[in-house]
Amino acid sequence: MQIKNLFTTLAGLIACAALSAQEKLVSPVIGEREVTFSMYAPAAREVSVHGSWMDPDDNCYGTPVWTSEIEVVKMKKDKTGVWSCSIPLPSCDLWTYNFYVDGVYVLDPNNKFVQWDGTRELSVLLIEGDVTKNFTGATRHGNVELVWYDSPTLGQERRMMVYTPYGYETCNKPYPVLYLLHGGMCDETTWDNMAQATAILDNRIQKGEAEPMIVVMPNGNPSQNAAPYKFFANEDRNEALTRERNAYVNSLVMDIIPYVENHYRVIPDKAHRAVSGLSMGGAHTLAVTAAYPDVFDYICPMGCGGNRSEDFLAGIQGIKKAGYKLYWHAAGTADFAHPGAVVLDEILTENGMPHTFYEKNGGHTWSNWRIFLDTMLPLLFR
Amino acid sequence: MQIKNLFTTLAGLIACAALSAQEKLVSPVIGEREVTFSMYAPAAREVSVHGSWMDPDDNCYGTPVWTSEIEVVKMKKDKTGVWSCSIPLPSCDLWTYNFYVDGVYVLDPNNKFVQWDGTRELSVLLIEGDVTKNFTGATRHGNVELVWYDSPTLGQERRMMVYTPYGYETCNKPYPVLYLLHGGMCDETTWDNMAQATAILDNRIQKGEAEPMIVVMPNGNPSQNAAPYKFFANEDRNEALTRERNAYVNSLVMDIIPYVENHYRVIPDKAHRAVSGLSMGGAHTLAVTAAYPDVFDYICPMGCGGNRSEDFLAGIQGIKKAGYKLYWHAAGTADFAHPGAVVLDEILTENGMPHTFYEKNGGHTWSNWRIFLDTMLPLLFR
Repeated sequence: MQIKNLFTTLAGLIACAALSAQEKLVSPVIGEREVTFSMYAPAAREVSVHGSWMDPDDNCYGTPVWTSEIEVVKMKKDKTGVWSCSIPLPSCDLWTYNFYVDGVYVLDPNNKFVQWDGTRELSVLLIEGDVTKNFTGATRHGNVELVWYDSPTLGQERRMMVYTPYGYETCNKPYPVLYLLHGGMCDETTWDNMAQATAILDNRIQKGEAEPMIVVMPNGNPSQNAAPYKFFANEDRNEALTRERNAYVNSLVMDIIPYVENHYRVIPDKAHRAVSGLSMGGAHTLAVTAAYPDVFDYICPMGCGGNRSEDFLAGIQGIKKAGYKLYWHAAGTADFAHPGAVVLDEILTENGMPHTFYEKNGGHTWSNWRIFLDTMLPLLFR
Repeated sequence: MQIKNLFTTLAGLIACAALSAQEKLVSPVIGEREVTFSMYAPAAREVSVHGSWMDPDDNCYGTPVWTSEIEVVKMKKDKTGVWSCSIPLPSCDLWTYNFYVDGVYVLDPNNKFVQWDGTRELSVLLIEGDVTKNFTGATRHGNVELVWYDSPTLGQERRMMVYTPYGYETCNKPYPVLYLLHGGMCDETTWDNMAQATAILDNRIQKGEAEPMIVVMPNGNPSQNAAPYKFFANEDRNEALTRERNAYVNSLVMDIIPYVENHYRVIPDKAHRAVSGLSMGGAHTLAVTAAYPDVFDYICPMGCGGNRSEDFLAGIQGIKKAGYKLYWHAAGTADFAHPGAVVLDEILTENGMPHTFYEKNGGHTWSNWRIFLDTMLPLLFR
């Protein structure tokens, strides 16, 4: 072994990374009863913090940027130029937050944990507890693949994320498949980025609480072929296609399912296919099951609703006629889509269709999408 | 088809995303001769921009945060509260930049394109031209998988990124493998995040300029089992292991290569294995080829150097004795590792070992790692 001396070279690299004084601050500091945020900003006039725990009924993905429009907690400057504030410990959840420096949106520079929600980066605050127990701790991990497939329906090569559970590589058994659809302003990576979908799957499967399953997360924006903003030349920018939402729904059944069933070891029948989605993905779930009632036995739209149009009612009746094993839908009671979800619940009841309407507090939020996913997984393929 | 009316539900979601006035600003605007940056910040006292083009000899991954320490261009405020400045068009490259608002590091809020370099998010400025021609435009894409493998050598399940080229799924031929190692403060996703590695591979392969190959990007930090900061509970935090750099180098040969050769369709011999890496990954490349001279025929360390220690010289002589097909190493002339690279060049020459020392201007930078990768790929497996 002649390795040892080579690493003297590394000393230079490490010295180069020497942290400046302000980077040695720790923020956030999670105590027993409070959380303390801090930031070095000697030249700033006003620094404050806004966090998602301040508005669990939030109905927008994109939080407004300006302090005048939203609730903030002001931070105070000490004589060394460090601003800080302590707030009572929020309830357990994966929260996100940011600072405002003289009115401008800023990440916490001392917190390397950030999440991209499709429109912006957010600093992350994890308060561990019952709600978060499936976000951490799995020791058996599934793999995640970013896969390009041909979509003749949309006239593009497109990208999707595919989760294969722990053990997929080493066993011969075929798996059921959940098609998990994202919302507006999101892409094929967002369920995993924002909802810890992979971690929740790993945990539920490792604990024996969910069937091992493959999870397919397509890109639901027909004018994109893959997640924008992280690499180049991946947007089709076909305006006509943007409007063709039906075409995307058709491509799910005509292009994506055949690709998955040809390339992965799956059980290719209705009893082993589930579809779920949040918000726009919930609308896609309603649409694809109405248009193709013979494809999915497990139907789980979230944060979206029904209506009493002739088309919608005919779609629901088609699902009833074709049969299904689970109809489970979910909405936060403060979600702007909640009234529509109530209508969906009523329509299913009026049609004598067994179903569960899972309601809880909160709005159109990632906090709720995570809980809905975690709650739904044990119900599938059982 | 009963899809149409469902999409009325979507109107609410889209309205919810209505952009505030300041978000309608476009920044950056790339003109023929200049680039204009702007930002709405009526309450700020001083706003400036710092970009990587200002210091192509930069030798640190982590740019210092404080305006007093680095070159900036000051922006001017108009009466609507919008700050802006125009600068001469930088040369073609994928550059990164940020704003400072009253001394605090801020992303450009109007530029959704951001890159995570392992320590921070950076706003991206692409000036297209010859240097960037392989960063965009490929229409045939390889897939990328985040794969968990067992590492008995490090006593962990660990994660790596594996690129399989376009066509891998549909042909029967076995592929050669490049093991591509990251630098300090990076992880298994950074070659792809920061260097557009996947895009460069797609382009070179589609143009017939590089052999189709599998590229394995492991996590080179033995105390991590996977990229931190994007999901939870993934750090081993074993301080002893952090110091065990040799153990990581051993795990590359003892754990990673066997996993890859058992799970992917590869040609499992020396003639079809290449190893390359930047900075710490360059040191890993030197170390693994010294310790295991019979494993790789293509040896391409970047941004790192040799020394005249007995160990190092014995390692090089072992490589000579075992034989190899390509020894190609690279460094920017302003890189702090350049003097060591010169020593490596001299040692290889003194030992009568055919090799190429690829030198160009610039420092220890992502601009250079991208160019080195793009330059090296056509030389492998040919």
